[in-house]
Amino acid sequence: MSIIQTAIIQIKVGSDKLANRQKLGNKIREAANAGAKLVVLPELHDSLYFCQTEDVSNFDLAEPIPGPATDFYSQLAGELGIVLVTSLFEKRAPGLYHNTAVVFDTNGSIAGKYRKMHIPDDPAYYEKFYFTPGDMGFEPIQTSVGKLGVLVCWDQWYPEAARLMALRGADVLIYPTAIGYELTDTDAEKNRQREAWITIQRAHAVANGVPVISVNRTGYEADPSKVTNGIEFWGNSFVAGPQGEFMVQASNTNEEIQLIDIDKQRTENVRRIWPYFRDRRIDAYASIVKRYDD
Amino acid sequence: MSIIQTAIIQIKVGSDKLANRQKLGNKIREAANAGAKLVVLPELHDSLYFCQTEDVSNFDLAEPIPGPATDFYSQLAGELGIVLVTSLFEKRAPGLYHNTAVVFDTNGSIAGKYRKMHIPDDPAYYEKFYFTPGDMGFEPIQTSVGKLGVLVCWDQWYPEAARLMALRGADVLIYPTAIGYELTDTDAEKNRQREAWITIQRAHAVANGVPVISVNRTGYEADPSKVTNGIEFWGNSFVAGPQGEFMVQASNTNEEIQLIDIDKQRTENVRRIWPYFRDRRIDAYASIVKRYDD
Repeated sequence: MSIIQTAIIQIKVGSDKLANRQKLGNKIREAANAGAKLVVLPELHDSLYFCQTEDVSNFDLAEPIPGPATDFYSQLAGELGIVLVTSLFEKRAPGLYHNTAVVFDTNGSIAGKYRKMHIPDDPAYYEKFYFTPGDMGFEPIQTSVGKLGVLVCWDQWYPEAARLMALRGADVLIYPTAIGYELTDTDAEKNRQREAWITIQRAHAVANGVPVISVNRTGYEADPSKVTNGIEFWGNSFVAGPQGEFMVQASNTNEEIQLIDIDKQRTENVRRIWPYFRDRRIDAYASIVKRYDD
Repeated sequence: MSIIQTAIIQIKVGSDKLANRQKLGNKIREAANAGAKLVVLPELHDSLYFCQTEDVSNFDLAEPIPGPATDFYSQLAGELGIVLVTSLFEKRAPGLYHNTAVVFDTNGSIAGKYRKMHIPDDPAYYEKFYFTPGDMGFEPIQTSVGKLGVLVCWDQWYPEAARLMALRGADVLIYPTAIGYELTDTDAEKNRQREAWITIQRAHAVANGVPVISVNRTGYEADPSKVTNGIEFWGNSFVAGPQGEFMVQASNTNEEIQLIDIDKQRTENVRRIWPYFRDRRIDAYASIVKRYDD
């Protein structure tokens, strides 16, 4: 029972929410038919990455939880008997929205949700306009395949988030993501950014002795405001083992379903030879909660 | 003044302390003559890696600070006008020893020291026998080339250590190291370990937007107790920029002096496009100081 048969689904997304959902439904079904028991989707997979511009009409894309999106994915998870990690635009109250991962268990129930804690804001990623920072902390979600440390995109740059999930007993870290190239950047800069994104997530695996699943979208999406040149999402979805080693890695540009068996037992084995948790200097970490230690 | 002309010195070490010191002196002189203003040595460079076995007579290798070792390196730093990062076995009091990095400024004075905070203990690395855990916290050392976040070896596996140094204003993270292969491990395992070691240190650069300098020893050292097969130190000393990108990387097996210009200004530039410090959820990190959050 230590094996999690895992599928990552890297896709291009279009402007029609229901069509996106239908396409994802087909791919989830394909992954489940191939044996997957845990299926992970990219960030905000039901729509184009609408944060490229600040437009109040985009709040219409949000849905309550539970709501139509969770009804759809719940039905699918239950029918296929899989654990499904989705990433949704949550309408919590009038004028109050979150970037929320919802995890469904094999019976179709909502196993838990995670509201993105770290919210970025930079040109073409105006997320602070749309998403209220999460208020549920870093709490792994118990499912029938294990405790899932679900985080979202910008969280992936924060070792604290990974550590806190691991300290709460996460068996695996999972990052639905939407990240890509700015088209005017040089190839060297594009490569540095993509490699940094891969490197830091592999390092979370190393630091905590847990597998990491990162699923990105791929394909080009234009900026509706025409202020920037749009985003070329860089794909490269991957799974790393608890030593940070690649287990699977998708391409830059293709829609892909990748299947891989993750063995939770390796965490115990790796932590025995790399017992980092034993030696943490918790007596000397208090300043981590400062903004800057000046 | 934002450029630090840096040299890393990767060496093999022998059993004669004074001969090691003389050899290092020649290499430091060579680096300085080539233009280096900051020179970094591997961990415990004055002796064989004596922690392969627990033997009380090895405590004879330790010296007080200041003492003969600091006298030697102080004179050299002052003569050459360089900032020099050394790694010494410190005798603090009878029966009280530390693994201590000592940094000399261009006038030969001791700019500061750092006592290794995280102490490993696993077969062939019996450091808990020799070294009392550091009691000086994570405090960067101010020098004439910048604030140096000096950490030592096992510290490199802890994102907390890197973060705390960065929050205290470190311009660069520096890791003198002694790490190598266990000879009976498979090539696959050796590669995973070496890549994990590189990956997590590059990730500290990414997470904090600072350059990272890591200097390892190379060459084989036998286990005097013959309990293990000894250590093949894996070299691979490197410098990464603040996006985690390689700037220089030494070989597995050769003694090398590598020179590289580190531009401190890039930290400001990179943190402007990757403003991780802005978005840290310091309201939600308190459990980092727990041993395990169960």
